[in-house]
Amino acid sequence: MKFHLLTIFPEFFRGPLEHGVVARALKKGIVDIVIHDLRKWTSDRHKSVDDRPFGGDEGMLLKAEPLFLAAEEIFPARFAGAGKPAGQKIILLSASGKPFTQAVARRLAAETELLLVCGRYEGVDERVAEHLADEELSIGDFVLSGGELGAAVIVDSVARLLPGVLGNEDSSVKESFSEMTGLLDCPQYTRPADFRGWKIPEVLAGGNHEEIRRWRRNAAIEKTARNRPDLLKS
Amino acid sequence: MKFHLLTIFPEFFRGPLEHGVVARALKKGIVDIVIHDLRKWTSDRHKSVDDRPFGGDEGMLLKAEPLFLAAEEIFPARFAGAGKPAGQKIILLSASGKPFTQAVARRLAAETELLLVCGRYEGVDERVAEHLADEELSIGDFVLSGGELGAAVIVDSVARLLPGVLGNEDSSVKESFSEMTGLLDCPQYTRPADFRGWKIPEVLAGGNHEEIRRWRRNAAIEKTARNRPDLLKS
Repeated sequence: MKFHLLTIFPEFFRGPLEHGVVARALKKGIVDIVIHDLRKWTSDRHKSVDDRPFGGDEGMLLKAEPLFLAAEEIFPARFAGAGKPAGQKIILLSASGKPFTQAVARRLAAETELLLVCGRYEGVDERVAEHLADEELSIGDFVLSGGELGAAVIVDSVARLLPGVLGNEDSSVKESFSEMTGLLDCPQYTRPADFRGWKIPEVLAGGNHEEIRRWRRNAAIEKTARNRPDLLKS
Repeated sequence: MKFHLLTIFPEFFRGPLEHGVVARALKKGIVDIVIHDLRKWTSDRHKSVDDRPFGGDEGMLLKAEPLFLAAEEIFPARFAGAGKPAGQKIILLSASGKPFTQAVARRLAAETELLLVCGRYEGVDERVAEHLADEELSIGDFVLSGGELGAAVIVDSVARLLPGVLGNEDSSVKESFSEMTGLLDCPQYTRPADFRGWKIPEVLAGGNHEEIRRWRRNAAIEKTARNRPDLLKS
């Protein structure tokens, strides 16, 4: 699977792409990631990518043209007139997008090539959302200064769903927000069994698998009720 | 305001902290960020930070001890017996946490010192959530390989709320998810007024501020209805 990241901060991704699951997926050749500097598609001397909004308002918006030119060069077949190639998506990261969730991550993991367009916080000319992007996604109800962290979130969460990326093929379906349970993970404990007087639940030290299974289910429900009552309702 | 990031990947943050609003806040001296390598607080030859879960399960958990030792060295006064110093919080990033939202960002922006503990995706010994962290937070309903991106999200969204970080003191209250409107941002457009035949809405080219205000309000409601109907219900 191939990711294209379109950004005004190409160096932003150095750290996030060089660690953990994403680094492993890159090393195994399961994903390929190309970072594109948006300023490459500007034509003026100052390489300006933004301009003031019509109608008066503070802040600057990313202009449509450099984003369109970049997409046309990155996905040439798409704009050649024969329609969108299957498996290809252009995604705009924006605080005004639809929510990015694990279900969306699973859907995107079935694509072959994604172009992630990193907006800046003041905004992006709306014609990008209307006429260029297939989807506008937001990673949460908070305001970030740009779409770069959102793009890194999508790369990480999608990459780890691809076959062969995680050590154990099962482990990506067993965690929180698996579509199977709709619950948070149950609490987990590791050695020592007694840490500074705080002991692990006795049942986990025994070998009764059925009791452990039951304890974990109850503990997951309790934790979900405490931290995410909204999940229990749905 | 001071952020401490506790992680097994100290190099992860190179890119995210060197750009945009966070870099500006650092340069202005409004925030200070210290990255701590969790392996510093291990005592065995392999500097191991994780171990297998009790009760049997795949995956590895971060052990409690290195996290407690790190917190004790980073926040010594807190553990000296006189109680938690005001303005100090220990936050565990985890998929099982309460949702991190803009309201939480505003609350955290009033603190003076945050320790952000980056979990790994298989999990963290629950005694950290129970006895060390003040809060367990999740940035969304998706599974990431670690808490580092969550920590970067918190640093970015909190830093930009601090006085003096954004150029215009007003701009942090005007955006999506402001508690004022509960709506997404309205669509915005910049030059050219006609881009490849796609024209900006006529009202924005005129100078009637009352009409512009009304158009923006309606456009924001329409976009919210399309992308975030959940926000209109509440």
